[in-house]
Amino acid sequence: MEALIGVLTVSDRASRGEYEDISGKAIIDYLKDVIKTPFRIEYRIVPDDRDLIEKQLKEMVDELGCSLILTTGGTGPAHRDVTPEATESVCDKILPGFGELMRQVSLQQVPTAILSRQIAGIRKNCLIINLPGKPQSIKICLDAVFPAVPYCIDLIGGAFIDTYENKIKAFRPAK
Amino acid sequence: MEALIGVLTVSDRASRGEYEDISGKAIIDYLKDVIKTPFRIEYRIVPDDRDLIEKQLKEMVDELGCSLILTTGGTGPAHRDVTPEATESVCDKILPGFGELMRQVSLQQVPTAILSRQIAGIRKNCLIINLPGKPQSIKICLDAVFPAVPYCIDLIGGAFIDTYENKIKAFRPAK
Amino acid sequence: MEALIGVLTVSDRASRGEYEDISGKAIIDYLKDVIKTPFRIEYRIVPDDRDLIEKQLKEMVDELGCSLILTTGGTGPAHRDVTPEATESVCDKILPGFGELMRQVSLQQVPTAILSRQIAGIRKNCLIINLPGKPQSIKICLDAVFPAVPYCIDLIGGAFIDTYENKIKAFRPAK
Repeated sequence: MEALIGVLTVSDRASRGEYEDISGKAIIDYLKDVIKTPFRIEYRIVPDDRDLIEKQLKEMVDELGCSLILTTGGTGPAHRDVTPEATESVCDKILPGFGELMRQVSLQQVPTAILSRQIAGIRKNCLIINLPGKPQSIKICLDAVFPAVPYCIDLIGGAFIDTYENKIKAFRPAK
Repeated sequence: MEALIGVLTVSDRASRGEYEDISGKAIIDYLKDVIKTPFRIEYRIVPDDRDLIEKQLKEMVDELGCSLILTTGGTGPAHRDVTPEATESVCDKILPGFGELMRQVSLQQVPTAILSRQIAGIRKNCLIINLPGKPQSIKICLDAVFPAVPYCIDLIGGAFIDTYENKIKAFRPAK
Repeated sequence: MEALIGVLTVSDRASRGEYEDISGKAIIDYLKDVIKTPFRIEYRIVPDDRDLIEKQLKEMVDELGCSLILTTGGTGPAHRDVTPEATESVCDKILPGFGELMRQVSLQQVPTAILSRQIAGIRKNCLIINLPGKPQSIKICLDAVFPAVPYCIDLIGGAFIDTYENKIKAFRPAK
């Protein structure tokens, strides 16, 4: 069975078409590069509006059946940045280890990594992960957390996902 | 005065007797190995049920007077995993540094350590720490945080605990 | 335009004049040492009382217009320690990366660093950061997070702050 993976870009300007959404594209390219099992992508873009972000996340999980959603943008300290709040409010459980690790690896690049409020959580059978807005930071974060993603989705009853081992060594404990 | 230390195993299957509770036993062995001051252990086992976990934690603190409670199990992302939620709801204060450090040291073993939602907190004069379910992970986590445990219990007015220095070097600041 | 920076010491005993507030003084000395743009300091001291801490924080932001407030004291696990609770309740957003990094660097000094519950957050145009009570820990924490402080204040619309590069290399991304 094909996995459905949501990619949600959160950006006032990109959603108005003022610039190209290179962040969303970077996520899609990353997924195509590392996942070897069949999957489809559901791509959406919204402005930095908490209600609209929540509405999209709920729809992508409850109606479309996504097993994984990756958001990009809206995780900083500015007043318009509300992606973590929207994510937290639609999730049943928060997984603090994702945000901790993503900030830790980003901190090796820039000291302002501590300004990112990115979180990850579970809604029903779907893992939702907030990624930063910058393409180079997206790759650093995904490289760090992706080894734990397939097993996490197993544990919550989502679709089976496996990766190319030379790209991402996904970990599943021996039975 | 003897310290009372609670050990609470949270597991559907172990609580039904379907397998032996090796995790609870691993915690008890660890405590006997590192603590040199007098203490008694109150051991209990419950299924992954939030109300039952909360009831046990409250009883172990409010009625029995535990100064420290170590839980094992129920900290993952699965729907039945509710130990952190139960812990948070009975605690007056959460100490985020425990979860952060335990995930960090566990991450050196397996990339799926970021899936653990384990927390620690204070209820009255008792420090409650969630540990993972696997015995080898329990030891790694306890080795990391135990140096701070005796002083923490001092600060909240619990019983005096001291460790064998060649096992765990407990830290108390010079007066 | 001159930046206004609040320094709030939280301590029952220092607020009663039972000892000198060397922590507040250490913060003021640090700021004078690293910030090269014009600023004024608003210094206050309160007992470990949640309502009084909240009242001071609100006044320093809403009425005086502070762009940055540094608190010291009241972040431990003891029952009187309520600075993080007061900070969280007046903030619009919490920035978990600050607490994570401050605990991580403090942990290289003492294993009891995990007992600190210090947080940072945003209220309106002001960044509020909890620091520990001990002067040597204050410097370690500020050295770790200060490179991200000026850009954070830019992002929330506070005053412009810049540092002496040989002391703190503040990071602002290239436009």
